[in-house]
Amino acid sequence: MIEGHGDDRYRYQYDVKIDFSTNVWYDMDKDIVRQMILDTSDSVFRYPEPSAMPLIKKIANNLGVGDNMIIVGNGATELFYIIAHAFKKKHSIIAIPSFKEYEDATLMYEHKIEYIDINGEIPAHGDLVWICNPNNPDGKLWSLEKIEHLLRQNKNRIIVIDESFINFLLGDNSSLPLLDLYSNLIIVRSMTKSYCVPGLRLGYMVTSKDLTAYIKNYVQPWAINSIAIAVGRKLIDTKPLDNKSLDDLFSRKQNFTQALKEIDDICVYPSSTSFFLLTTPMLASEIKLLLLEKYGILVRDASNFRSLSDRHIRINTLQSEENQLLVNAFKNILK
Amino acid sequence: MIEGHGDDRYRYQYDVKIDFSTNVWYDMDKDIVRQMILDTSDSVFRYPEPSAMPLIKKIANNLGVGDNMIIVGNGATELFYIIAHAFKKKHSIIAIPSFKEYEDATLMYEHKIEYIDINGEIPAHGDLVWICNPNNPDGKLWSLEKIEHLLRQNKNRIIVIDESFINFLLGDNSSLPLLDLYSNLIIVRSMTKSYCVPGLRLGYMVTSKDLTAYIKNYVQPWAINSIAIAVGRKLIDTKPLDNKSLDDLFSRKQNFTQALKEIDDICVYPSSTSFFLLTTPMLASEIKLLLLEKYGILVRDASNFRSLSDRHIRINTLQSEENQLLVNAFKNILK
Repeated sequence: MIEGHGDDRYRYQYDVKIDFSTNVWYDMDKDIVRQMILDTSDSVFRYPEPSAMPLIKKIANNLGVGDNMIIVGNGATELFYIIAHAFKKKHSIIAIPSFKEYEDATLMYEHKIEYIDINGEIPAHGDLVWICNPNNPDGKLWSLEKIEHLLRQNKNRIIVIDESFINFLLGDNSSLPLLDLYSNLIIVRSMTKSYCVPGLRLGYMVTSKDLTAYIKNYVQPWAINSIAIAVGRKLIDTKPLDNKSLDDLFSRKQNFTQALKEIDDICVYPSSTSFFLLTTPMLASEIKLLLLEKYGILVRDASNFRSLSDRHIRINTLQSEENQLLVNAFKNILK
Repeated sequence: MIEGHGDDRYRYQYDVKIDFSTNVWYDMDKDIVRQMILDTSDSVFRYPEPSAMPLIKKIANNLGVGDNMIIVGNGATELFYIIAHAFKKKHSIIAIPSFKEYEDATLMYEHKIEYIDINGEIPAHGDLVWICNPNNPDGKLWSLEKIEHLLRQNKNRIIVIDESFINFLLGDNSSLPLLDLYSNLIIVRSMTKSYCVPGLRLGYMVTSKDLTAYIKNYVQPWAINSIAIAVGRKLIDTKPLDNKSLDDLFSRKQNFTQALKEIDDICVYPSSTSFFLLTTPMLASEIKLLLLEKYGILVRDASNFRSLSDRHIRINTLQSEENQLLVNAFKNILK
């Protein structure tokens, strides 16, 4: 999706002062990242290792799996395209509303696509099921029991779990332990959201040795930039979202959503993570533009998520003062 | 091709002191690049513009073409895969020996592939013709007359000209002026070789508006890392390979090849550019390993280029002292 996503400030002439439009951990210590880039910048003078193996080994070691179970992508997004390519023309089931790239990737590779309500039952048929956990845009959480049911329900079918936001949860809900039991599980993770480096483009997938070997046939050489490989290796050793940070984030989210709920006309939807959906009586496109024009605030117009309405907006939780500015802005606009 | 290319030092335990294995402009002032990375490192904290438009506009402006005629790729290599995808299952004619990625990309997208001797006639049939100009690995130059003949011979057929090494020539031989006349021409360029930033992964293609609009359907969003976009924008404004640098490079190459030709048993092949092929009586794989083990010198075993023999090696021209060390090493090994 080249148009219609978050952090689309480049489309407007207004200065963005506060960005609620993407689900990135903005509290990451940026000086740590700046230093990592400085320390690794000379890597651009040589070709990167063609399959990003130095980073693969580091990730494998960190997760305690074999390096023959990992593929690194130029962002999690590239991995969705690689998976869609490896299973081209297959029957894909996509639980919606969700990240638009599952649809775009499977369309590009001519899948038969079946959309399923994320709150309904997933049928037992199909070749691939695409699930985001916790889900973007609504923060719905899939329990491991439910995911295991999907894996067991049809062992010939591949279950793709996008764990791009798995670090933005209170408590562990990763499907990683299921990898030992189910060879039809593919877990995709973004490395950029919890480290606040979305510009670096870095993601990885973990799956069985057999699926890794097969999917590698669809990977291009030298796809990952050498700075992304080198900085990624260093980031793996850091843990920006510790329990204290998460407790603080969720306490802010609690106050933020409570204040929003107190505004008449705003409906806030429950979410397991730091971002959430809301609706107002105004068109999402209109209120987005007003927030940007008058307050320099960027939100995500979520009306282009399949099955959402033209009133849906997605909001990330930021610092308390920033959250309060958005609450005030909504109050002024909707009064 | 994940295995079997240049700059494959990561495969060996030996320390590489001199690298003749890739065709990169190592005389680029690296401090300029380091400063550019430092100046743009904060771009990683935001998502890149999804289609790399800020870089596209800069390239378009530099070339004097519309920004609707440019697509930026994660290295020239990604563009070969995107083109192969856009014309999947078509009939591709590849002039060999040449860069292995035309073959790998068209194979991945199920083309019918026909290999043609680079010194023979290109037939009038087929849907795409892939030509590298000047050619990797042998430095063969295609005249613009010959390229125009191909474009005119069959206007329903797409001619892909890989100009990754076009800056490594004495005199201009780019097919860019032909874009005004032929809508079936695609020019692909690497931005990383003449600026010595192969780790950055940056290339672009220029073609007619219609072909650009069509091929864009096969481009993934956020494919280009934000540092690559930002540094690429700055690099466009610099010209590392001026006439003086080129004169110096070709004078060194003349001395280098002359010295190599004087060694019995070495056959040096003519080349229009700074890199060239040679053969020795030894297997390329053996002599490559000896050079690395005994001298810390890395060369490109060119035996995996389709139609070359197991004796072919590709060499880049470096500084005179470095070239002399390779000459001496060959003399010792082959005496």
